[in-house]
Amino acid sequence: MKSKEVRERIRRGEFQKNTSGACDEYVQANVVILPKEFAFDFFLYTYRNPKACPLIEVLEAGEYESRLAKGSDIRMDIPLYHVFINGKLHEKRGDIRDLYQDDYVTFLLGCSFTFESQILNNGIYLRHVDYKKNVAMYKTNMETEPAGRFSGPLVVSMRPIANEHLEKVIEITSRFPNMHGAPVHIGDPSKIGIEQIECPDYGEFVEMKDNETPVFWACGVTPQAAAVRANIPVMITHAPGHMFITDWTNDDFLYEIGEKIPSSSE
Amino acid sequence: MKSKEVRERIRRGEFQKNTSGACDEYVQANVVILPKEFAFDFFLYTYRNPKACPLIEVLEAGEYESRLAKGSDIRMDIPLYHVFINGKLHEKRGDIRDLYQDDYVTFLLGCSFTFESQILNNGIYLRHVDYKKNVAMYKTNMETEPAGRFSGPLVVSMRPIANEHLEKVIEITSRFPNMHGAPVHIGDPSKIGIEQIECPDYGEFVEMKDNETPVFWACGVTPQAAAVRANIPVMITHAPGHMFITDWTNDDFLYEIGEKIPSSSE
Repeated sequence: MKSKEVRERIRRGEFQKNTSGACDEYVQANVVILPKEFAFDFFLYTYRNPKACPLIEVLEAGEYESRLAKGSDIRMDIPLYHVFINGKLHEKRGDIRDLYQDDYVTFLLGCSFTFESQILNNGIYLRHVDYKKNVAMYKTNMETEPAGRFSGPLVVSMRPIANEHLEKVIEITSRFPNMHGAPVHIGDPSKIGIEQIECPDYGEFVEMKDNETPVFWACGVTPQAAAVRANIPVMITHAPGHMFITDWTNDDFLYEIGEKIPSSSE
Repeated sequence: MKSKEVRERIRRGEFQKNTSGACDEYVQANVVILPKEFAFDFFLYTYRNPKACPLIEVLEAGEYESRLAKGSDIRMDIPLYHVFINGKLHEKRGDIRDLYQDDYVTFLLGCSFTFESQILNNGIYLRHVDYKKNVAMYKTNMETEPAGRFSGPLVVSMRPIANEHLEKVIEITSRFPNMHGAPVHIGDPSKIGIEQIECPDYGEFVEMKDNETPVFWACGVTPQAAAVRANIPVMITHAPGHMFITDWTNDDFLYEIGEKIPSSSE
């Protein structure tokens, strides 16, 4: 199915589940919607933390059509929204048109579904995909660069990778700097402050085999966690796994092997 | 001289001229200081127009030490400031400490001095440097991507380049995506809406020889022009040519040949 068709099914309420595996070749995005009053600080937070918050688009206050998806409506083209009031999850719903205000600013961030699809295309096994589980995510002892009200630990996702495929997986993910890029840590979880690998802070744990190594990537939950901690009056995000599907393909964001991949913090 | 030494001389009022050629190996930056109320729109304008507005740092409201220059003070380390009130140049001065407010946000943008120094190092002649003139700049018929209050034409700088060196100059400047990068136009000025090449909108014209071609680059005056047009109550910038000198070297921002150079608008 084309991305536009899936968005239309979502809009009509016919597609309400998570979007993992839907429209594999299209870029899916994390979504954060905030009042403009907080938008500069959040923009700066993404600029200073590009691995966790790889910005792919910013809509202006009151805008709801993404330039990455013609005819889209960010207020109803996501299967499930989370509404946070004063930093607490207040409501889950499938349409936010009646909540959306003229001063709301929308940020779209790259998502690891892009590199996961590329890993799978290379014939490499991802257990959480096989088990149809949400990837395991952990708060680390690595602090993000604060910006204004926004601060907090780097949140990472973890995938057990067969040792023989480690190099290939690093190479593939390095080529998607706008989708979290190369791993931030490989191996010993305690080195980044994770004490119990079996007990993720978000998502679900999947077992690890003897010939596998845990690999950790910066995760799009980081900015959500920072925004919750910032305790702002109202913030709306996608529900984990229920992403915004753009018309851009994964290949549009792929860098060639051998390129130096820049980041705004360099 | 080291960048820090020049900044200290500027701070003591001993260096008041333009910074072209001072500290050749260090990155110099365009500076725009705005009240936070307008900072999100301006941030978005730079994000949407990366060739004209290559962001290299954003300071938070009230901050005045750049992370790119330890011990610096953005309120007095620039030889000459321009103060705009309601979109009009109101005052030129060498110190803005008594004007600076807690809600002022500072943006640093890459500057063509970086690639000019690299062009000269390659033994290629730049007439305006030889004549110690400000480079010629023109408004074009190319519109920038608007963002909030900010909009306007792309402003370009023009340098006559000997035909035998055209390829080399394109290559050199392409490798500095954070300093305006590759040219936006080469050859016929009328194609980009410039009717009288002898009459630049800013800076000074230098003659062109028969074996030379005019080459046009996106220019850091673009965001200043957009900010003036936006008619905001107060904005402070560097005076043209009187830049902020960082501790980063030009090489820190150099990309290797053969790399695909990304931009946020891709």
